[in-house]
Amino acid sequence: MGAAGKLAILAGDGTLPSDIAQAARTAGTPVCAVDFAGVRAAVPDDVEVIAARFERLGALFDDLRTAGVDRVVMAGALARPALDPAALDATTLALAPRIMAALKSGDDGLLRAVIAVFEEAGFAVLGAHELVPGLVAEEGVLGAHAPTPADRADADRADAITAALGALDLGQGAVVAQGLCLGVETVQGTDAMLDWVARTGAACRPDAKGARGVFLKRPKPGQDLRADMPVIGPDTVRRAAGAGLAGIVIAAGGVMILDRAATLAAADAAGLFIWARGGLA
Amino acid sequence: MGAAGKLAILAGDGTLPSDIAQAARTAGTPVCAVDFAGVRAAVPDDVEVIAARFERLGALFDDLRTAGVDRVVMAGALARPALDPAALDATTLALAPRIMAALKSGDDGLLRAVIAVFEEAGFAVLGAHELVPGLVAEEGVLGAHAPTPADRADADRADAITAALGALDLGQGAVVAQGLCLGVETVQGTDAMLDWVARTGAACRPDAKGARGVFLKRPKPGQDLRADMPVIGPDTVRRAAGAGLAGIVIAAGGVMILDRAATLAAADAAGLFIWARGGLA
Repeated sequence: MGAAGKLAILAGDGTLPSDIAQAARTAGTPVCAVDFAGVRAAVPDDVEVIAARFERLGALFDDLRTAGVDRVVMAGALARPALDPAALDATTLALAPRIMAALKSGDDGLLRAVIAVFEEAGFAVLGAHELVPGLVAEEGVLGAHAPTPADRADADRADAITAALGALDLGQGAVVAQGLCLGVETVQGTDAMLDWVARTGAACRPDAKGARGVFLKRPKPGQDLRADMPVIGPDTVRRAAGAGLAGIVIAAGGVMILDRAATLAAADAAGLFIWARGGLA
Repeated sequence: MGAAGKLAILAGDGTLPSDIAQAARTAGTPVCAVDFAGVRAAVPDDVEVIAARFERLGALFDDLRTAGVDRVVMAGALARPALDPAALDATTLALAPRIMAALKSGDDGLLRAVIAVFEEAGFAVLGAHELVPGLVAEEGVLGAHAPTPADRADADRADAITAALGALDLGQGAVVAQGLCLGVETVQGTDAMLDWVARTGAACRPDAKGARGVFLKRPKPGQDLRADMPVIGPDTVRRAAGAGLAGIVIAAGGVMILDRAATLAAADAAGLFIWARGGLA
């Protein structure tokens, strides 16, 4: 990452915006954060924050250019916005048909549209994983526990399911235990799906002493990893443990691990494996 | 349905076993019910009941032949059994590897195996829809309410999703609202999925005044309709209404409507459409 221009972090929830801000500074890149209405930008206090609204993209583009920004990165979860039509500026109004159409597609379609809008406005769009080394897992078993052959078979089935779902622009994750699918990620997201498995999955495993199952997460086939790259973190581990699973399988090179030390410590403590599997991204 | 031999109803939950028993009698076919351990056969009191255990299929086949049974029909939901290995008879023991493998596949794989086991023992296996006329919906809008163009678009998306899921032997249903998938049926079944959408779906629709969404149910592509033909009933309508949906889409010719009068009355009262769509089965 050179020092050509300023980087703007479109900041959502979680620790990722802060990680990116710190990585940018380490690399000598000037950085600012964009705080959309109602979202508190989770960046260090001394990082410049530009207030923004989804309805006023024209104003945001002007502010970014004034600040010297030439690159943006989307970081952290942002809720699908409820837009106030009366607040739309001319730029956003012209984009409205595309944005409304994208809001009705899956996450990937929406984020592809957002990337296109920023690129057309002259900004380069980077992926968080391009900025922060070590966010994306290398292939291998990462923690203290390892998958059994039964867990690997469950991972194979979850792989087939998520590949088919991804082609439809549905979610990026699925839970499989003893060959049976206990959960499929839909627009409610990973956390809600794992909580659902925790509540409903116990009676669904044919062999009470058999494999406890895996949660697999991967990018959709062909997904633009600059937007919505799948992530796991300590909370994912807690929810997977709560769902009674044996471990978490992620696509090596295709899923970010937030707060890696805490994530692996939580998995080790809960007896879960974390396996970054090749061939999924 | 002729009077060639006796029909045995492998009876699960719900009103279907009773409906079949009455239809068989109307047609002059002698009938009995098989009651698996822990399941109360829901048939009229004067129907002969043969007690059975999943672990003792050899004994069941003997009992059926002694009773003059040459045809069986599976009717109503049966929970996946927890088998007691110590209780297995010789016939079941010989079948155990196939049954254990089938238990680890989806519902369809399991029921295909059960059908094969009964056929190999010399029994014809019939579908409930072959015995009770009018169980399966003809094409068209069935109740007082009709889908809007937006509902039809949601049905198209749900169709694409269930077709892809069915090819993987996952569930038979999905919920789509405003183009977004709010739920996918997994082994927990339709009721649990609709309850999940009721709990989690409200915030997921981009336009609060837009299409409320549809629940679509269809057989899996290539599914053997003698086993686990998809069904809806009054309870499905109640749960779909609880999930805030606009209506229910079923495959014309491929989904049974239990207690049709009550189902349509419930839909009319709740303002939901019931649409039996062609081209899905």
